[in-house]
Amino acid sequence: MNESVAAADPLALDRQLCFQFYAASNLINRLYAPVLAELGLTYPQYLVMLVLWERDEISVGVLGRRLHLDSATVTPLLKRMEALGLVRRERDRADERRVLVSLTEAGRSLRARAVTVPETMMRGQDAGQIEALRDTVSDLVDLLAAAQPARR
Amino acid sequence: MNESVAAADPLALDRQLCFQFYAASNLINRLYAPVLAELGLTYPQYLVMLVLWERDEISVGVLGRRLHLDSATVTPLLKRMEALGLVRRERDRADERRVLVSLTEAGRSLRARAVTVPETMMRGQDAGQIEALRDTVSDLVDLLAAAQPARR
Repeated sequence: MNESVAAADPLALDRQLCFQFYAASNLINRLYAPVLAELGLTYPQYLVMLVLWERDEISVGVLGRRLHLDSATVTPLLKRMEALGLVRRERDRADERRVLVSLTEAGRSLRARAVTVPETMMRGQDAGQIEALRDTVSDLVDLLAAAQPARR
Repeated sequence: MNESVAAADPLALDRQLCFQFYAASNLINRLYAPVLAELGLTYPQYLVMLVLWERDEISVGVLGRRLHLDSATVTPLLKRMEALGLVRRERDRADERRVLVSLTEAGRSLRARAVTVPETMMRGQDAGQIEALRDTVSDLVDLLAAAQPARR
């Protein structure tokens, strides 16, 4: 980074906090990809599974809010996961406007194979540093979520 | 976040640093979207423009490395931007294997309208906090980039 340019120019790439997050997210995604490929999952699919392993049978809306994704992103993701046999999508009988997502038997049993993923990814990292960074970013996520325009 | 569950379960979503970055990146993207839409840009297109406004006429490979994106992501992005009239892609005459990207006149002049974007996005934020967080994440990006498997 050229400090003098960066200091003078509001558009300098390295000055943009947003870019650092975009880059970190893409790089993390790429590091996870080969590990998750062994489970047959992409990175966003893995996140959906984490949510459902915590709490099965939730609405698409709740799932999207948990992952901070809008429905235009969640719906194709879930359709693909349904085709893979990991989840089922069904209209809520009590409220026809809601679609409920639940794990199939295959989706549930995948958990046992996924349980080593966090350890594999964090091997050799300083746990205290990771936790401190996670809490900082988690606070930022809460701020960003609160700053979003009203949800559709 | 349910602390007791999170402490016991390595797969608890809120424990995953990767998820916090994914969420932050998506939320930042969504906050920028309406501001960038006024310039006719998506968020990844904006990042490409930031790189080219810093340094025009670079190879696709250099651009991808600058943004930490692989060529499977960069190429369709640039094709779309070429169709929008913002950039040109041309084979390097000195080295036919390289494709050079340069700004069109429209791409260059868009800079004047983009120069207020960072200020608009950061309005009301604590500049010191933003800078500290940016430096932390920037260090992480360097670590993550170094941890990547060899590039294709």
